[in-house]
Amino acid sequence: MRWAACIEYDGSAYSGWQSQPHAPSVQDSLEAALSKVADEPIRTVCSGRTDSGVHAQGQIVHFDTRAERRDRSWLLGTNRWLADDIAPQWFVRVPETFHARFNAVARDYRYWIIDRDAPSALWRNRVWHVHKRLDHDAMHRAAQTLVGRHDFSAFRAAGCQAKSPVRNMHHVTVTRLGDWVRIDVRANAFLHHMVRNIAGTLAVIGRGEADPGWIGELLDQRDRRRAGMTAPAAGLSLRRVHYPDDIQLPQPPLDDAGW
Amino acid sequence: MRWAACIEYDGSAYSGWQSQPHAPSVQDSLEAALSKVADEPIRTVCSGRTDSGVHAQGQIVHFDTRAERRDRSWLLGTNRWLADDIAPQWFVRVPETFHARFNAVARDYRYWIIDRDAPSALWRNRVWHVHKRLDHDAMHRAAQTLVGRHDFSAFRAAGCQAKSPVRNMHHVTVTRLGDWVRIDVRANAFLHHMVRNIAGTLAVIGRGEADPGWIGELLDQRDRRRAGMTAPAAGLSLRRVHYPDDIQLPQPPLDDAGW
Repeated sequence: MRWAACIEYDGSAYSGWQSQPHAPSVQDSLEAALSKVADEPIRTVCSGRTDSGVHAQGQIVHFDTRAERRDRSWLLGTNRWLADDIAPQWFVRVPETFHARFNAVARDYRYWIIDRDAPSALWRNRVWHVHKRLDHDAMHRAAQTLVGRHDFSAFRAAGCQAKSPVRNMHHVTVTRLGDWVRIDVRANAFLHHMVRNIAGTLAVIGRGEADPGWIGELLDQRDRRRAGMTAPAAGLSLRRVHYPDDIQLPQPPLDDAGW
Repeated sequence: MRWAACIEYDGSAYSGWQSQPHAPSVQDSLEAALSKVADEPIRTVCSGRTDSGVHAQGQIVHFDTRAERRDRSWLLGTNRWLADDIAPQWFVRVPETFHARFNAVARDYRYWIIDRDAPSALWRNRVWHVHKRLDHDAMHRAAQTLVGRHDFSAFRAAGCQAKSPVRNMHHVTVTRLGDWVRIDVRANAFLHHMVRNIAGTLAVIGRGEADPGWIGELLDQRDRRRAGMTAPAAGLSLRRVHYPDDIQLPQPPLDDAGW
């Protein structure tokens, strides 16, 4: 039997999603909890790996098991075994053909920046704190150049293992909420560090150190070294993974408070 | 010279605001950082103590010093010396007559509840997680009985040292945002555990185990043992302290995302 699950996590204490020797990973913790509930070893496949310190509200995984459990038993059982910084949100039975990664057609990430002198104590692991006020309108205008099908080599980490640097960006929106600047991106898929490199580059424009037209030049030049810094992991979270309409999964329970 | 400051903190790691022997307090940490910036010992007076695990976005303090520092020097200096779960938000010079506690005319607290089977990983230290869906409309209706000048003995902790149990409640509003129930209260002042006891009692009504009219009976009976449980500290935060119009302080930088 194949199950899909939605996983929320605070990535602060983990070396990232993926299992690694000698480092705590979200995957290892989740699989340990699933295996206890199932009373057999469980391996998971996720929609996309997240880096060390990156969060998720809507990471989607699938796994196979012979254990007969109700959805609520998986939910309550795994949440009981897991540390409180990883919290499965739902479990649903899916066809054996469902694949959390290969079936995903789009991913939503959100990046938070706070731009004022004082950092935030309550959001310390959830935002990138910059001192200089950013021009969020210029950032939004610049970001529209990223929309569409492009070669994103300028925003790709050196170690990225994707075969192609071409991705289809559905939208990028930059919104200000008081001292908070929120960058929302949706693409079919992302290269390694792509969102954080986009955030770091948009911040250069927000500080007035480059014109919005710079983004187009960077895309054309396809040279990572010319773009902005990789913004810190803490500001990033995987909000939602989209699947084709014939795969009906529950939505992640994103709160309406907007974070 | 007297200064006022606005302090944001995540109370999770502290035994509360107040200095205590052999336990970490927000006050001790803040005073140590202020003393380093001032290069002399600094003592603070706060608008109201918060308990262990309770947070603040808008705690107000005052302190006296002979050190000549600009507001931005206090802000950057204290934030540099403090752990990242305490973050001063602003400093302003105030008259020697200003008193953070005695001049305060009202306090705003917010209490967060999440009511679904799955806990939240990202908000684990910021909400009370209950499994049963709450009737937030009934909670809101019931809460209106608390508005006005009342003897709040039914919601007062056993060890409360206030001389009078009478407080003037300005408003109580209960709002739902998805799986989140938000209780906002404003009163001239609060008794020990008063907001958490109100939250615990409203939750009983939200679960349908008592009618909204129960609140009036509890106020009349003035017996703490008859009201609901003390809701967990993690859900509570001090949002804002109000002073008379002739004392012009900056507002706490509450983000507009609504948390």
